[in-house]
Amino acid sequence: MKIVIIGGNGTIGSYVSEYFKTTDEVIVAGRNSGDIQVDIADTASLEKLFQSVSNIDAVICIAGEARWADFSELSEEDYYIGIKSKLMGQVNLTRLAAASLNPGGVITLSTGILADDPVLKTASAAMVNGGIHSFARATALELKRGIRLNVVSLGMVAAAYDKYKGYFPGHNPVPMNKAVNAYVRSVKGRGNGEIIRVYEQ
Amino acid sequence: MKIVIIGGNGTIGSYVSEYFKTTDEVIVAGRNSGDIQVDIADTASLEKLFQSVSNIDAVICIAGEARWADFSELSEEDYYIGIKSKLMGQVNLTRLAAASLNPGGVITLSTGILADDPVLKTASAAMVNGGIHSFARATALELKRGIRLNVVSLGMVAAAYDKYKGYFPGHNPVPMNKAVNAYVRSVKGRGNGEIIRVYEQ
Repeated sequence: MKIVIIGGNGTIGSYVSEYFKTTDEVIVAGRNSGDIQVDIADTASLEKLFQSVSNIDAVICIAGEARWADFSELSEEDYYIGIKSKLMGQVNLTRLAAASLNPGGVITLSTGILADDPVLKTASAAMVNGGIHSFARATALELKRGIRLNVVSLGMVAAAYDKYKGYFPGHNPVPMNKAVNAYVRSVKGRGNGEIIRVYEQ
Repeated sequence: MKIVIIGGNGTIGSYVSEYFKTTDEVIVAGRNSGDIQVDIADTASLEKLFQSVSNIDAVICIAGEARWADFSELSEEDYYIGIKSKLMGQVNLTRLAAASLNPGGVITLSTGILADDPVLKTASAAMVNGGIHSFARATALELKRGIRLNVVSLGMVAAAYDKYKGYFPGHNPVPMNKAVNAYVRSVKGRGNGEIIRVYEQ
């Protein structure tokens, strides 16, 4: 398969890219690195991606940001950081990929445990994650040409544990092989409209 | 209690207003009708509401719109109709109400079954509903002064059955007394961060 991995050089993305490079043709897309540059918050940039890369079988998005801050300090504009990036960036990616991917292709988005089990400072981050979950389930009902859409929702991953453990009291880190497997399940399985939750109990 | 019901003259809102008028002091707010005019998509209008009405114990929002259309026809701009209205309108209402309500007050937002169980044409509508669910759970962790936040998520209600049944094949309509009770549970109960789902099996 020809797989485009947006954010494929990131903390989680680098593990996912490394795996798929052993089995498939991988094109890593990133804001500042990778084989091709793309910023999901910029719709024109996404359009350019699908114009410049043809015959894509799978696109994986492990990118997108949202503002973390105390609820009392989040301004309306702060919410729009996440709306334009992690929420509408992934919606726009899905819109364009649904029209561009090869028949039988698969779109995999990324959210996170905050959608289901939030922690402090995540009013905005949880919102965009939960929005993507419901968006994906609704959109999966309507995709044509055998194209599938799934979401991977990970708990805090082991590779980010030292940096973020203070924000996730009592959370157990998700081993990176389990994180990678969630993306493998989406791409190589046959599920559509699945929210693939990997939360370490 | 002094209760402001935004959308209190709407299909569901009129039943909710009628109930609370028998037990509490009710101020109905609407875009074009009611005791006071407010448009939740307009943040200045929400600010004016909280400046002009003091000593509020509870605010209920049964308002907000989103574009319904086939996924293949929804433009980026179409998604922003729901983002500005039902999503960020309710987020901004929560931001302002959290700072303005009386201590021990309660904020009740409205979503719907599409968040959990979407139907065709609801990629955008499901997205905003799911976003509000996760937003509310995250925000409830941080509210101060004993203020609570819940969401009522109803299935298709009996009062809208004739108009919408074609969009919800096989869905059983939620009796209006059960719909009203969901709001009563939020306002008069002690729950915080609850998604009060009322889906008729």
